[in-house]
Amino acid sequence: MATVANSVAHPTLVSADPFVPAREQKNLHNRWHPDIPAIATVKPGQVFNVECVDWTGAQIGNNDTSDDIRDVDLTSVHNLSGPIAVEGAEPGDCLVVDILDVRPFDKMPWGYTGIFELENGGGLFAREFQSRAAKAIWDFKGVYATSRHIPGVRFAGVSHPGLIGTAPSAELLATWNKREGALIEAHANAVPPVAYGPLAPGAYVGQDLPDDVRAKIYREGARTIPGREHGGNCDIKNLSRGSRCYFPVFVKGANLSVGDLHFSQGDGELSFCGAIEMAGIVTFSTSIIKGGVEKFAMKQPIFLPSPVDPQYSAKLIFQGISVDYHGDGTQYNMDATVAYKQAALNAIAYLMKIGYTREQAYLLLSAAPVESHIGAIVDSPNACVTLGLPLGIFEHDILPKDEGLKKLEFGQCAVRSDGVL
Amino acid sequence: MATVANSVAHPTLVSADPFVPAREQKNLHNRWHPDIPAIATVKPGQVFNVECVDWTGAQIGNNDTSDDIRDVDLTSVHNLSGPIAVEGAEPGDCLVVDILDVRPFDKMPWGYTGIFELENGGGLFAREFQSRAAKAIWDFKGVYATSRHIPGVRFAGVSHPGLIGTAPSAELLATWNKREGALIEAHANAVPPVAYGPLAPGAYVGQDLPDDVRAKIYREGARTIPGREHGGNCDIKNLSRGSRCYFPVFVKGANLSVGDLHFSQGDGELSFCGAIEMAGIVTFSTSIIKGGVEKFAMKQPIFLPSPVDPQYSAKLIFQGISVDYHGDGTQYNMDATVAYKQAALNAIAYLMKIGYTREQAYLLLSAAPVESHIGAIVDSPNACVTLGLPLGIFEHDILPKDEGLKKLEFGQCAVRSDGVL
Amino acid sequence: MATVANSVAHPTLVSADPFVPAREQKNLHNRWHPDIPAIATVKPGQVFNVECVDWTGAQIGNNDTSDDIRDVDLTSVHNLSGPIAVEGAEPGDCLVVDILDVRPFDKMPWGYTGIFELENGGGLFAREFQSRAAKAIWDFKGVYATSRHIPGVRFAGVSHPGLIGTAPSAELLATWNKREGALIEAHANAVPPVAYGPLAPGAYVGQDLPDDVRAKIYREGARTIPGREHGGNCDIKNLSRGSRCYFPVFVKGANLSVGDLHFSQGDGELSFCGAIEMAGIVTFSTSIIKGGVEKFAMKQPIFLPSPVDPQYSAKLIFQGISVDYHGDGTQYNMDATVAYKQAALNAIAYLMKIGYTREQAYLLLSAAPVESHIGAIVDSPNACVTLGLPLGIFEHDILPKDEGLKKLEFGQCAVRSDGVL
Amino acid sequence: MATVANSVAHPTLVSADPFVPAREQKNLHNRWHPDIPAIATVKPGQVFNVECVDWTGAQIGNNDTSDDIRDVDLTSVHNLSGPIAVEGAEPGDCLVVDILDVRPFDKMPWGYTGIFELENGGGLFAREFQSRAAKAIWDFKGVYATSRHIPGVRFAGVSHPGLIGTAPSAELLATWNKREGALIEAHANAVPPVAYGPLAPGAYVGQDLPDDVRAKIYREGARTIPGREHGGNCDIKNLSRGSRCYFPVFVKGANLSVGDLHFSQGDGELSFCGAIEMAGIVTFSTSIIKGGVEKFAMKQPIFLPSPVDPQYSAKLIFQGISVDYHGDGTQYNMDATVAYKQAALNAIAYLMKIGYTREQAYLLLSAAPVESHIGAIVDSPNACVTLGLPLGIFEHDILPKDEGLKKLEFGQCAVRSDGVL
Repeated sequence: MATVANSVAHPTLVSADPFVPAREQKNLHNRWHPDIPAIATVKPGQVFNVECVDWTGAQIGNNDTSDDIRDVDLTSVHNLSGPIAVEGAEPGDCLVVDILDVRPFDKMPWGYTGIFELENGGGLFAREFQSRAAKAIWDFKGVYATSRHIPGVRFAGVSHPGLIGTAPSAELLATWNKREGALIEAHANAVPPVAYGPLAPGAYVGQDLPDDVRAKIYREGARTIPGREHGGNCDIKNLSRGSRCYFPVFVKGANLSVGDLHFSQGDGELSFCGAIEMAGIVTFSTSIIKGGVEKFAMKQPIFLPSPVDPQYSAKLIFQGISVDYHGDGTQYNMDATVAYKQAALNAIAYLMKIGYTREQAYLLLSAAPVESHIGAIVDSPNACVTLGLPLGIFEHDILPKDEGLKKLEFGQCAVRSDGVL
Repeated sequence: MATVANSVAHPTLVSADPFVPAREQKNLHNRWHPDIPAIATVKPGQVFNVECVDWTGAQIGNNDTSDDIRDVDLTSVHNLSGPIAVEGAEPGDCLVVDILDVRPFDKMPWGYTGIFELENGGGLFAREFQSRAAKAIWDFKGVYATSRHIPGVRFAGVSHPGLIGTAPSAELLATWNKREGALIEAHANAVPPVAYGPLAPGAYVGQDLPDDVRAKIYREGARTIPGREHGGNCDIKNLSRGSRCYFPVFVKGANLSVGDLHFSQGDGELSFCGAIEMAGIVTFSTSIIKGGVEKFAMKQPIFLPSPVDPQYSAKLIFQGISVDYHGDGTQYNMDATVAYKQAALNAIAYLMKIGYTREQAYLLLSAAPVESHIGAIVDSPNACVTLGLPLGIFEHDILPKDEGLKKLEFGQCAVRSDGVL
Repeated sequence: MATVANSVAHPTLVSADPFVPAREQKNLHNRWHPDIPAIATVKPGQVFNVECVDWTGAQIGNNDTSDDIRDVDLTSVHNLSGPIAVEGAEPGDCLVVDILDVRPFDKMPWGYTGIFELENGGGLFAREFQSRAAKAIWDFKGVYATSRHIPGVRFAGVSHPGLIGTAPSAELLATWNKREGALIEAHANAVPPVAYGPLAPGAYVGQDLPDDVRAKIYREGARTIPGREHGGNCDIKNLSRGSRCYFPVFVKGANLSVGDLHFSQGDGELSFCGAIEMAGIVTFSTSIIKGGVEKFAMKQPIFLPSPVDPQYSAKLIFQGISVDYHGDGTQYNMDATVAYKQAALNAIAYLMKIGYTREQAYLLLSAAPVESHIGAIVDSPNACVTLGLPLGIFEHDILPKDEGLKKLEFGQCAVRSDGVL
Repeated sequence: MATVANSVAHPTLVSADPFVPAREQKNLHNRWHPDIPAIATVKPGQVFNVECVDWTGAQIGNNDTSDDIRDVDLTSVHNLSGPIAVEGAEPGDCLVVDILDVRPFDKMPWGYTGIFELENGGGLFAREFQSRAAKAIWDFKGVYATSRHIPGVRFAGVSHPGLIGTAPSAELLATWNKREGALIEAHANAVPPVAYGPLAPGAYVGQDLPDDVRAKIYREGARTIPGREHGGNCDIKNLSRGSRCYFPVFVKGANLSVGDLHFSQGDGELSFCGAIEMAGIVTFSTSIIKGGVEKFAMKQPIFLPSPVDPQYSAKLIFQGISVDYHGDGTQYNMDATVAYKQAALNAIAYLMKIGYTREQAYLLLSAAPVESHIGAIVDSPNACVTLGLPLGIFEHDILPKDEGLKKLEFGQCAVRSDGVL
């Protein structure tokens, strides 16, 4: 009988515990700053694992109230694992990152989708719905998710990191802070805010650092909410396991960080906490293309989607135009965001006809593999955006029928313990 | 030997000649108005053909200059075939329309994509590029298109009517004119204009009509440029042959009109004349769901895409955020339109690295089966939009490579005879 | 206004009338022989059309009896259009053929699927079912087919030529006739026969030919029933519009012939007349790769499937092994044909549970876009073959349910006027 | 901050160590027999894990010789985990099994594909190639596999259990042994054998059993090589993670067993040890449909494939007919197995033109997500079978080119230490 090779498991560069608050764990950070040191260096070609907490860092529980969503501390979210340096990467290079796998921890086979309060987090319909906290817990059953809070659906996850990026240079960081600062200033009293500037309270870098370095990072570090030129919180659902990403490099080593894992997400991640948020493990390998930024005219990452994304080809498609016909009827000028909102509101109205509550519908569109396309963006004054609802995720036939739609009982999602919705 | 049944060809309700100016042809119209009489009535279930001129009504030629694009008369475009009434359809019903086929005329196996002048038509990058007229002619070879003006690509068409809709009621028409009028007023000097109000010059209804009816239609009729609640110029490329559409009905008979056929189009139809515009034949059948508007909570059409859309699953995906980093660096607030423009500009820059001119790249993104998704629309302040370039349409491998991208010679598209670009 | 180019329709090299018996038409032939002269010569790159009669040459009618199927004359079937010579093609070259389109005549928007009699044509289950003639007429509605004889289904066609190939050399023809003759001799009394040798009665070449040439062709010409090294009647459903084929060239000019068009077909074409047989028009272009046979080690055609084949990804899959458990229980030795038959019989039994008759089920599996895969072919003694039934073609949900399958009334297909089935 | 739920990991019913010989481990068995007791009972709906050794039970090593393949003990292969009983399942029921996940052990991120010796295991081309042992080791990198022994390819796995089935009843077992015994008798001297009868040496049940029970199982137990009515070694690659299977139940509790996990496999598993064989973990849930065998006319399992199978839609397709033109030219009568062999030999010849050795090509077709369809099976005398090679798995463009195929250097796979191949 042949000898059998010993174990050759891929190394795990960041270990995380999904049940321990992020601030108590090492090698996590929740701001973008060039001075955050790499916690490890890999060679191009090496396969390695990175463990991640969920985006809130264990603030949300597997239970039936949304109080934890209501009370979530958003100053300390997006606890990223890393940064990981790649040997040889230099500014101007392109860092090729293969997202080889993304999966939940065996010991935490569940995740959640939340609707935030208007005043704490918001979301696409925060104002329209005057949102109160709501939540759905999703159980992971292998490649599938189901929810006791949103019965009648079951779907395979397009699992991906919601947030992945290289570290910004000092110059790039300054650009971000300047331009976003201007926007914040221009909308000083917006609720929810239009953007989030640097904020020391809540900032965290889980490494030993000289006090002045830490203070500088906390003072200047860019918040993790928006995606930017380096990637970041792009929430592109197709940045999924099996995809290859090309990142611009801004600092020596590239310093890749990752977090905010999603078991699944719909295009747009409507409710903001809208993916199926999970803790888990990402498997990577990397390589470098020297001078790639110039070679490929890169101003932002490029990627190749995965061949293993779920194939829900049959879809029911809703349209929206840049007229707020669900609201006051205002005609907007080629505004794709308004158009997307109408498409989503049309889909929500349809889902309510088959028995879902407005909150269940909103959560479902956020979490399921919904596809949203820009249809037309030149037919003045109406941008046209579509939202496709995959038929294969529903246990029942939801197609339009002569006899109308069969209205089923789907209960309710998790709400606040005081019953306010 | 068995007897053989006689010919049972489907009837053609509108006959059109693609080489004759639209204004000289019957059963066409280029405004939306409830008083345009139906030119034929069909029973539910009947299969029928409708022939359509190209959207300009034979203004554009199969030649190598873009002078015709420069000089196009946009007051008379979107010559629609119809309206067709469906027996039994009443306001509040849902008209189910099966788009059974869409194909070019045998005698006109070609189409075109154009970039309009900044001052005559515009397009997504009219201002950024200070656009001058350009054009690509596409030759149809069965299911494929190729262009002498954009070498190196060949793709199967997602053929569809760019423009299809039911007639508005008088009330709905008034709503459109009011809300768009307000927008026009608010941007009185915009170039290109932000919207197009009713305009008698150029208006056309190819039927015998009492003078006062004609005058009323020309005076009040809504322009066909934007998509609206009834469908219209949604330019959704997946409203393709094989798809099923659900339209709200606003007038007795529903009065369906169709035109602006596209052999292919990319999401967004960037250059406005951006699809592969063609004349051709649509095959339909219809049915009615009584009270469907209420049953399905319809504020705009719903549809089921076709199972025969081309499968170009491998794509290179470009991202954009709502920062005008290709321009003055302005930070916008969750503006998906700005984000889409960045994604498209990133793709154009990439295509120029492999040898296409800016205009070729712009035309190609407009015409090829490019997919654009809303990625994130809640990560304040940056909306994230993606644009996917299908790899299978290129004759050469365009993926990022260590050695950079191979720059080929792809000539130039058709430009103005005075050489201005 | 720009001048408009004149008509540039692609030329039609063979014109056929679908309602006239094949023997009365020019440029058709129903045997393979190197001495059949090319009826036209094309240059590489040229786009051209070829019209084809249905495979029986107008023997079958759009009616409700199967008498025409019962009485079909099989000595004269497979009336091919051609041959078409390609300038520059020589033996040993590879002829690249782009099947650019395949579509029915506008004036004949229907086709048929038949079950032959045991004694006249046979089919996969001729002996098991002691087959009597049956038939289904299919109506073409754009990209879709439906049948009054098989209600409850509607599907998009994977339209293709069932039969396409280059002319054999004299040497290759001799090889065919020798090896098939040996098989016929070894099974002299088989019903239906195991193969069909050259047969002058029924032979046809619709050209002016010297008598001795005609006599030689009729005497030696290979029958068109089986696929062979040159292509021929391979009945590969994915040789569909949009696909690219690589054929070995055996004679100067390659001499391409085509016929037996199918609107749709299931893998295996079970009932032999099992596709949706149609008359129609094929659009081609060709090119030549010099010495391709040696370059690509070609012993038979190679092809690239089309990107526009219908996407019916959700399927219910039946298995079969090489044990005749539907018959006498015999254990066969790794016989994939037996395994396929079991899989098909399992599917037929399932379809009968939802209300189809055995003949309807047999016809449906033959005509619909059913997929059959070789599962395992090394697990002695059982080959395992699967048959996938696309769910999207059914109007009702056919999935296994706790409460069993809902049995509907689907009437009956067309049968013999004497009622024998 | 909200409380966080405790770990709720799914239970693991069978624990296995991939590096320990199967015979030394509990809850494994390598024969099919109704008297093997269930090792655990689950309730319908429960999610649970089952760990599996590789099919040889740790006989093969991660090294660079094929001696272990040459010497493999095939009397003791297919060590299955189980049986698992499902509460309430009775003969005649249908057991619904959701294969929720299939993945390798973290500590063993590799697998292998082997070619067996003609005299020890065989394979599809054992006789044609006079096979000597060869091997490729595959490294798992998340969803992808690559091999140092077959460079130039990288593909996502369609991971599945090669072997899964319910326990046979005593009666069914007797039927198997009788019919296979007759076949063995009829081909007494075949090398490799045509089938494998019950054989006490090598038999194993890893449970405490009374001696007489064990002896009976070892004496009568069916070998695990072929698939049969209960499922078994069907080697259907699409029985993959995410798929739903319907098994007939033959004994109380159903008694499900599983093993022979594959990271990936091509249709047919040509080389017999042809998948990427791996040890790993399967996640299941089950339910019962009472009386399902009768309700669904089940003679063999039915299944619904997974929506997450990799999408390699672009393929180069090779054909084969039932003529042994790679051998002595014999004409076979509608033999799909012969046809498949020709298609595979055509693909191997093509792969050798781009630089792979015959053994590398044979291993690659066995292991990669190759698709094989039954094309035609009624066109006497030639069955036509196709084999589709996905283009997306190759690092280089392998399409036919004017200039021929670029021949690269791909080294050699692992061979015997004595160099015999």
